[in-house]
Amino acid sequence: MKNVAQLPVGLFDSGMGGLTVFKALAQRLPTEDLLYLGDTARLPYGTKGRSTIVRYTLKAAQHLVDMGIKMLVVACNTATSAALPTLREHFSPLPVLGVVEPGAIAAASASRNGHIVVIATEATIAGGAYQHAIARIRPQAVVTGRACTLFVPLAEEGWMDGPLVEGIARRYLADVFHLADLPQQDSPQPDTLLLGCTHFPLLQGALQNVLGPKVRIVDSAATTAESVANELQRSGLMHPGQASGKYRFLTTDNTPRFAKTGAMFLGRPINEEELFLVDL
Amino acid sequence: MKNVAQLPVGLFDSGMGGLTVFKALAQRLPTEDLLYLGDTARLPYGTKGRSTIVRYTLKAAQHLVDMGIKMLVVACNTATSAALPTLREHFSPLPVLGVVEPGAIAAASASRNGHIVVIATEATIAGGAYQHAIARIRPQAVVTGRACTLFVPLAEEGWMDGPLVEGIARRYLADVFHLADLPQQDSPQPDTLLLGCTHFPLLQGALQNVLGPKVRIVDSAATTAESVANELQRSGLMHPGQASGKYRFLTTDNTPRFAKTGAMFLGRPINEEELFLVDL
Repeated sequence: MKNVAQLPVGLFDSGMGGLTVFKALAQRLPTEDLLYLGDTARLPYGTKGRSTIVRYTLKAAQHLVDMGIKMLVVACNTATSAALPTLREHFSPLPVLGVVEPGAIAAASASRNGHIVVIATEATIAGGAYQHAIARIRPQAVVTGRACTLFVPLAEEGWMDGPLVEGIARRYLADVFHLADLPQQDSPQPDTLLLGCTHFPLLQGALQNVLGPKVRIVDSAATTAESVANELQRSGLMHPGQASGKYRFLTTDNTPRFAKTGAMFLGRPINEEELFLVDL
Repeated sequence: MKNVAQLPVGLFDSGMGGLTVFKALAQRLPTEDLLYLGDTARLPYGTKGRSTIVRYTLKAAQHLVDMGIKMLVVACNTATSAALPTLREHFSPLPVLGVVEPGAIAAASASRNGHIVVIATEATIAGGAYQHAIARIRPQAVVTGRACTLFVPLAEEGWMDGPLVEGIARRYLADVFHLADLPQQDSPQPDTLLLGCTHFPLLQGALQNVLGPKVRIVDSAATTAESVANELQRSGLMHPGQASGKYRFLTTDNTPRFAKTGAMFLGRPINEEELFLVDL
């Protein structure tokens, strides 16, 4: 019989964005098996209502749990902010980690002046999860949330830099970063941008060009991988083997988009034999 | 008992784009009751695989049929091009009309030189339905298809004009319309742009600015309304009353987005009492 520690870590996302978290996890924990489920038939979650997101997330998580996983990582900001408490309750005692807390930690420790802008999908911003998580860690922080809806299709289209992408970024961020005018004394310049959506690291170069070198841009991928490592260590669930982990990618839609677009997020091609279609 | 002719015409779309067809239908046939279902919990369909689109469309259409309709209008190019034959077979003898044939008719009759560009979602272009429909009507036509994935979220974000929108349009259309260089003799300039997605009429002004006044831009909303009128007339199903039609809008997701964004497509506000949530 298989030891629980030998089971894969399950990652769930609405689509391909969570592959940026997958990539960080594979780098930090190279001997762990990883099982990824992207709910591509229902993506994007970010413009949908909370109860719809919770329903979809529970269904997808159940599928991973039925396949056998030792931990669930919700590699999607929208699903984390809508459904994390429900998932923890439903699948207890399985450890369930999200990306919001690690992202909040990254931003709270990166910022010097405590003025942080978080950009994410409509659903994540409306839910306020990042604003609350940062307030818990650093109560004096001033956090401004901004929904950047077009960044998701932009990243998926592979348009990651150039004047159009920078123009779109400027339109979303000009007022919160006072890009058009001089900073006013009563409203200090934010010094940190938190990428609260797993798609957004692909646009980091363009965002840095727009905001200038003084603004620090952070995301939750690396800190989430660190949290997963800590949790596996704490609970004695680190994979006992020394060999490289095995990877499987499940999707709910049969379009070639997952492999094509996913490769950009993962930073390497996704092979046919790693890819499986599931019907949820 | 209600006469069949007194039943509403059912319209189905993946989200809000079909409201541009709804609007044309309400103008052309003001005494007809209209029942609209937007599958907002699963939108967009345009980047998804064919079998997924067929599955979702059948489910939504079944819901409208169960509620009682005298005709089904598939007010979504992606669903029409993936699922129209299946729908016709499944719900026979209910008349089922799509938007592709009317759009093809509009483009084929608008073009003088027979060089037509059709822009649509990835799924519609990949399926080739428009290319085939135009070829049937005007076999000598030269049709170029181009997927404009970002136009859907752009229209839904309400970004309909200005330099960014024109820049994105230019990036998608520059090569097919030879915008960067002089037209070459062996590849004549297309004179017609067919908007093969119900979202795209919102961007018509920006597209006309980019392409110049000589290019005719057509869509399928008005010709679809004309086809519906003809079919109702032919089958003796015109509503017998003289009063204004009653309208109901069903959505599968409870976000306020439908009413907010839908109003742009419909050209008037959507009232609370017209709006219903259904669980598919």
